Amino acid sequence: MLKFDYPKNPEQFNMVEVPDMKHYVDCSMDELFAIQQVAEEIRENANVLLVIGVGGSFLGARAVIDALTPYFRTNNGVEVIYAGNNMSGAYLKQLITYLENKSVYVNVVSKSGSTMEPALAFRIVKEYMENRYGTEASNRILVTTDAHKGILKQMAEQCGYRQFVIPTEVGGRYSVFTAAGLLPIAASGIDIQAFLDGAKNAESDFDNVDIQSNAAYQYALARFDLYSRGYSLELLASFEPRLRKLHEWWKQLFGESEGKEHKGLYPTTVTFSTDLHAIGQFIQEGSRILFETLIHFDEIEEDIEVPFMLNDLDGLNYLAGRSMNEINATSKDGVVLAHEEGGVPVMKICIPKLDAYHVGYLMFFFMKACVISANLLEVNPFDQPGVEAYKKKMLELLKENVVNIHE
Amino acid sequence: MLKFDYPKNPEQFNMVEVPDMKHYVDCSMDELFAIQQVAEEIRENANVLLVIGVGGSFLGARAVIDALTPYFRTNNGVEVIYAGNNMSGAYLKQLITYLENKSVYVNVVSKSGSTMEPALAFRIVKEYMENRYGTEASNRILVTTDAHKGILKQMAEQCGYRQFVIPTEVGGRYSVFTAAGLLPIAASGIDIQAFLDGAKNAESDFDNVDIQSNAAYQYALARFDLYSRGYSLELLASFEPRLRKLHEWWKQLFGESEGKEHKGLYPTTVTFSTDLHAIGQFIQEGSRILFETLIHFDEIEEDIEVPFMLNDLDGLNYLAGRSMNEINATSKDGVVLAHEEGGVPVMKICIPKLDAYHVGYLMFFFMKACVISANLLEVNPFDQPGVEAYKKKMLELLKENVVNIHE
Repeated sequence: MLKFDYPKNPEQFNMVEVPDMKHYVDCSMDELFAIQQVAEEIRENANVLLVIGVGGSFLGARAVIDALTPYFRTNNGVEVIYAGNNMSGAYLKQLITYLENKSVYVNVVSKSGSTMEPALAFRIVKEYMENRYGTEASNRILVTTDAHKGILKQMAEQCGYRQFVIPTEVGGRYSVFTAAGLLPIAASGIDIQAFLDGAKNAESDFDNVDIQSNAAYQYALARFDLYSRGYSLELLASFEPRLRKLHEWWKQLFGESEGKEHKGLYPTTVTFSTDLHAIGQFIQEGSRILFETLIHFDEIEEDIEVPFMLNDLDGLNYLAGRSMNEINATSKDGVVLAHEEGGVPVMKICIPKLDAYHVGYLMFFFMKACVISANLLEVNPFDQPGVEAYKKKMLELLKENVVNIHE
Repeated sequence: MLKFDYPKNPEQFNMVEVPDMKHYVDCSMDELFAIQQVAEEIRENANVLLVIGVGGSFLGARAVIDALTPYFRTNNGVEVIYAGNNMSGAYLKQLITYLENKSVYVNVVSKSGSTMEPALAFRIVKEYMENRYGTEASNRILVTTDAHKGILKQMAEQCGYRQFVIPTEVGGRYSVFTAAGLLPIAASGIDIQAFLDGAKNAESDFDNVDIQSNAAYQYALARFDLYSRGYSLELLASFEPRLRKLHEWWKQLFGESEGKEHKGLYPTTVTFSTDLHAIGQFIQEGSRILFETLIHFDEIEEDIEVPFMLNDLDGLNYLAGRSMNEINATSKDGVVLAHEEGGVPVMKICIPKLDAYHVGYLMFFFMKACVISANLLEVNPFDQPGVEAYKKKMLELLKENVVNIHE
């Protein structure tokens, strides 16, 4: 289903615990049905779904939506827009203007409701929705949060918003298979049943300690081995530009799970062949601090042929009739040969097809590998104590300024 | 004009040559006039400008256009789309469909015309334009290439395309102030005269060897100092999401100029506060291998206020009446305090305003600092020998396959 390729015998490694991760793909039938119903309602009534969330509360949904929807937007279907992940006044101002002639639904995603970025964006959007839709606003605002506690839960109760659940035991960066991911993904028209099936099959395929057959385990061991040998950076690379947001999700998953106690590989990403003409020089000949992990999909649905050209002005007639995806795959093989020759360790993750099922499968593969990786590194894969540092400083500064203003 | 802030006395460093870089901002009045005229023509006749180019042939233009145009597209103005920077068949297929009801101009940007990605995309687009527009196609295709040689130059002559020039002595990643950058930038409605003025003033401000006053020199020295002390990564950070593509341009500039002879800082980027909730944990507490360079614009034109909320459900009424840009600036101050406390060296580049003049100024600042940096590192800032490696391997594989097919 997923082929992992790295030229090293995994048997020489020690074993670590392979944790049970069933509860990460355990969306109940009731919740799934409710999500599918509301997604249908959004698709019937809206042309914009505004997802307000930061970190794990939007990166998973955006990753899947970008990977599985067309590159160019037409006026059909629901446009998913993200807010509450930055504090740019210009962004929010222009967003509000942009919404003006659209039919809008809002999905606020936050476990606690108290994170500053989504809380401020929601305050602005809530006012906008109430001014525009009056009492109907509460029907157009959907809340995804903890089932039992938090500010957002309270607001939902008071204002009568419909609620969806992020289970208490599922942290943000592991939440793409809960309502946090599934609701926006379904609203954008993607088959969430297939997406979940892929994840569930990955869960069962990688739930064993047999290194020879468990690709998630192999990947975790290989990257730990390279880290132990002094490599500082892992460069995740894809050959299809619409995987760029999946890269961003992967960066959070690994960076936030492993980057603690002054440990961890810095997770960074490239899209090929675009970035071969930007950072390719460094990969080939710069500081020998990085290794590469290539994601390759064997089958991608749409494709185009290189046409024949009279007079062969550009000298490329020898490629006429070949498909671009085929040439793209050849460029991948060229990259492997060139970078290995340049002294860069290269791993390959090959997946049969770019579709909902396999994207679910791949994302669960990464989640499982990430937890095993963190266990190898002897850090906690589920906390993020360092994220609080800037929030605390910012809050102090904001409250200082308030006092100054009132004096 | 631009304030550079790093807590280290630059006087303790050795001096290197500060090269003359006037010819990088030396677009002639005739060329500038021709660019402005054709940009006007595009704005009158087209709603899509398709820029075909890879690496330095599109990263500069895209950086500026993204930094200075609105976040959300309306149907007004020219939409600039990029192709020829990847080899995805799905992307090209969907692009051609998307163009169907648009009025299209094409700008092919390539010094030689022989780079595979733009050459293949242009072959496909050329056929499309000729089928759709007949003889008018040649009026809608604009070529930016070397003045004297190359396949693209020849094609332009044979097909009667209008031509714009990338001077022979200006390499791709330094070409944003030539027609390669200026034509698409002008077509998107940005004031290229102001953009060039900014660059020219930066050229004169940083053309001296006085370390105390030359911020480009200071920046180069500071990053060289950190590199010498064992740091592996420079993390460029902004607080305005529309600078993301400028980050990509910066990555090529530094990565391709310095990443050779097994040397160089790996250039990577983040957008705050978005990425504080993704890679922030790693920055705060992960491997101590990186330092940060923050870009901050003091003034950003559009903004929005935090509204007052009845009952203060989210507890944020203490921020009511404050502007988001102001809160965003406070988050920057919080980041500096938190990351310095976490042991991350932080540099700041402060620019008065986010506009065409200052973006030109900033980009020239980076170009100058990059050349000085490479000189400190004792590598050639202008070549990219490693980029050929994958091209060569790919070509071998493509030609092998041709033979196989014909056998």
